[in-house]
Parts: sequence; structure tokens; C-alpha cells
Amino acid sequence: MNLVGLVSMQFVRVFRAEHFALFSRIRGLGFDFIELLVPEPGDLDLSDTRKALADADLGVVLAARVNLQRNLCSTEAASRQSGIEYLKYAVDCAAALGAEIVGGPLYGSPLVYAGRAPAPVSEDERMARLERCATGLNLAAEHAAASRVRLAVEPLNRFETDAASNVGQALELLERVHPSVGLLLDTFHMSMEEASIPAAIRRAGSRLLHFQANENHRGFLGTGSVNWVEVARALDGIAYSGPISLEPFCRRTERFGVPVAAWRPPDENEDEPLRAGVQFLKSSLALAKHRR
Amino acid sequence: MNLVGLVSMQFVRVFRAEHFALFSRIRGLGFDFIELLVPEPGDLDLSDTRKALADADLGVVLAARVNLQRNLCSTEAASRQSGIEYLKYAVDCAAALGAEIVGGPLYGSPLVYAGRAPAPVSEDERMARLERCATGLNLAAEHAAASRVRLAVEPLNRFETDAASNVGQALELLERVHPSVGLLLDTFHMSMEEASIPAAIRRAGSRLLHFQANENHRGFLGTGSVNWVEVARALDGIAYSGPISLEPFCRRTERFGVPVAAWRPPDENEDEPLRAGVQFLKSSLALAKHRR
Repeated sequence: MNLVGLVSMQFVRVFRAEHFALFSRIRGLGFDFIELLVPEPGDLDLSDTRKALADADLGVVLAARVNLQRNLCSTEAASRQSGIEYLKYAVDCAAALGAEIVGGPLYGSPLVYAGRAPAPVSEDERMARLERCATGLNLAAEHAAASRVRLAVEPLNRFETDAASNVGQALELLERVHPSVGLLLDTFHMSMEEASIPAAIRRAGSRLLHFQANENHRGFLGTGSVNWVEVARALDGIAYSGPISLEPFCRRTERFGVPVAAWRPPDENEDEPLRAGVQFLKSSLALAKHRR
Repeated sequence: MNLVGLVSMQFVRVFRAEHFALFSRIRGLGFDFIELLVPEPGDLDLSDTRKALADADLGVVLAARVNLQRNLCSTEAASRQSGIEYLKYAVDCAAALGAEIVGGPLYGSPLVYAGRAPAPVSEDERMARLERCATGLNLAAEHAAASRVRLAVEPLNRFETDAASNVGQALELLERVHPSVGLLLDTFHMSMEEASIPAAIRRAGSRLLHFQANENHRGFLGTGSVNWVEVARALDGIAYSGPISLEPFCRRTERFGVPVAAWRPPDENEDEPLRAGVQFLKSSLALAKHRR
């Protein structure tokens, strides 16, 4: 059975030692692991964190955070180098915490959250960017090979990146990268970018290392329009045995002028829909094996 | 039966007299009207355009184009004033062309295409923004009342605006605005922001003035994951008799590094899927009346 986890941003944006009590709370809700943002230096003592995770019997997966200053795709060597150093650092953090996966938009190239508008790219620049990115990912993968940590590249929707927004785009990158590097797929992005989520999952196949089960609107799992029965069957169809994270941290609002895309802390106790979300997903996965 | 149209950006970004031949081509594909971007001064002679439309027996709806310098929500009076002037100008263009609707994100407040990142908004600022926007819309609506032109406010997804991203947000604005102003709903944005597209359509009800039938990935209608049977039934359920536009101008690519959100001109003849799209939509609407 796949392990199911919850992203730390469900509760706080910057996770620190003062939040260790969340580990047992998350475990109590039925989650098997926490998806932590890769801590920035000074945010967390890694051995203390590992001990607190073990005390709560909670696993961990890491989510990388790129920006324009750590960008494998960049035309600037300093930004590329920082991107590579950051991925190596993220791998080291994972190894220190006992995490086996570092996932996210590892290629860099953020758009809206970096205040960049999409702009056309020439074919020469596209190919150069592809080479730069593959080179950086291979250097990070080489570093990861010394540990059990694996890198998972996540396509983001068209507004969050201009590098890899669908499975096809990510696969063109992975063709040039060491096979230890795999895919992270998120149904929030897929519901915007793929003609068919199940078909995209089947296409990822054995390259899928990590999965994020998010609704089309990023609210609580089971409250949107993603067809979870079909998703569970597709994951079962490719014999996916990796982790699955929930990130339902979008506090929707009906009020004009509240930016939906800006992260906001929880404004109510969310335990019930979170608990129901784990049960819904785990039962969907179980039933997928009995389909007929 | 609803009139079905095609957006001018299917072919060109800036529509000029040299493109008038597209009118009969679009008519020949089975469309009843063209959705033209509001021409910037100098782009088009309006009476020539009206004559060319009539010659091709093609109707027209206008799509407004806001930016940070014409922004009803702005804290800067000059930007708000330009936003109001622009909407009045758009209404005048519509009247000159024989269009009855000016739709779009009339409130302003663009994000990703203006290179802005989403940021939190205080409740005081949110309420002030709501008032500023309603004031501007009412002034534009007053101007429109002298003609048959109506304004239709379109919620855009969370990455394209931080003002109104779902039906609920738009309705809070419309509560403060003259009832002649209505809604424009686009299934591309709805598939990201609404828990249920049919429920959102029913909620819009009689305030719906214009509709855009776009796939989740903005490719050709019928090639994505929007449930068009349910959409057609919901539109029939609210007795929607207004226009419906197609905007399948997203040229998808499987190649790493091609920005999906950047507009690109067509790279092949798209007549067949466009023609099939009109037929698919019109037949879905017809069949919705025979559901049982």
C-alpha cells in the first residue's frame, strides 16, 4: 500500500523546532509521512528533526524550493551553480533526515511567484536551456547516487513555470538525465495541463517516483472535480508503490479581492476533512485493486 | 439556439484591416460571430470593420484588455481613471461595430501577464479595492446605458488576477454594481477554480451574459477533460441564450522549455478541429434539450 503524507505548509510556511508537535498530530490524522519544504540553513536542526519524526513514527519526503537565483535553466552561470549547490544541499538534508525523495520543480525557471510573465523562447535558446538544465540535474544526481536519495522532477502548470508544464515536456528533459532521476506528478497541475490525467499517469509509468493528490482547486481532496476513482486505477495500473502527498492548503474564499494563489494560514480546524482525505484516498487505492 | 463564436487570437494577436478575409473564413467554419479584442486606437477603422463583418454575415463580441495602467482596482487615481476611460472607449467601439457585449476581467488587477506575484491583501485594503472597482464599473455601466452594449465581468484563474477568480468573488462585486452589468464565465478558469462547473453555471443564473467554452488546457474543444454534456445541460438549465465563444489558441507542445502560457501563432491549418468544435458544441446544446 502506498504511504500517504501531508505537506507541512498545511499548517505553517516555515517549519521550525517549535512545530515538532505537529508530527504526532499529523500521524494521528492517519498520515504516514510529512512532506517538508527543504529547510533553509538555520531553519531546523536536522538531527533533532529526525529524532522528533522517529518519536512520532512519521516518515518524511522533501520538497525543493527553487527561485531565479537557484535556477538550473538560467543563462547566468552563478544562478545555475547555485541551483546545483542547492540540489546537493537538499539531497544532504534528505539523507540527514532519512528521506528518500527530493521532489519539486528542480529545473528552476519560476514564473508567477517570481514576478515573471511568460515570454516566447527561440528554438536555439530552448535547446541551450535544455542542455544547461540536464547538465545541472546530472551533477545533482551524481551527488545523490552516494546516498539512497532520489530526485523527482515535477512539471508545474503554465503560470508557475515556462520550462516543464506537462508530462511530455518533463520526459524530454529526463531523456537526457541519469535514469535514477524520475517524475513527481501533481493532479492540480495535471488537471490544467493534461488532456487526460489517467493517460498522463500511464505515460509516466515506471519513471514516477512521487505523486501529489491535489484537487483542481487545491482544496480538500474529494471536494473538487478530479476523478479519484480513475486516478487510483491509473496508479494501480502502473503498479505505483511510491509515496502520495496531500497539499490541500488553498483556503478558498468567495470574497472579491482575496488572492486565491497567495498562501494563507489555516483559519479553522481542518482535522476532519484531512482525516477523511487520507481515508478516501487509501480506500480508493485499495478498491482499485478490486475493480471489475 | 446560442450563437457560437471564435476569438480573433486564434489567428492573429493584433487584428487589422489586412485580416478582414478571416471573417468569411470563420463564417465558413460554422461560427456565427468573432470575438475581437477591443482594438487599440489606430488598429482598425471601425466603420470599415463593421462593413466587412456585415459582408461576411458575421456577428461580433468584444473582449476588453486591461493592464496595470488601466485598472479599476488600483490605489492610483490615474490608473483607475484610465481604466474607466478605457471601458467607456470599449463600449463606444462595441456600439460602432454593432457588438452588444464587452466582456473580460474589467476590474483590472492582472497578475502573471503583468509580471506580478500574488501577495496577501489586508481586509481594509480588500474593502477599499472593492469600493474603487464598483465605483469604476458603475461609471462605465452608466456610459453603456446610452447604447445597447452590456458589460460582462469575467473571473480569471488565481494566477491571472488577484481580484476575482471564481463566481463567488465576482458576485460579491456585482452586488454593488448596476444590474445591467453581468458575468462572463470561461470553463478554462472554472475548471481550475470551481468545485463543480455545472454548479457554478447554475449559481450565475440570469446574471450570465457571455460564456467561453474552453478546455481545461485551452486546446481544441472536445480534446481535454471538461465534461461538455454537463456544461450544455447546465447552460440549458438556466435558459442561457447568450453567445458562446471558443478560444482554443493554446498550441500545446511536448517540448521542454516552450512556455505553454505564451501566445504563439498557429503552426498548422486548424480548420478541421475548429469546424468539429462548433458542431460538437452546437449538437451538445441541442441534445441538452432532449435529456431524459
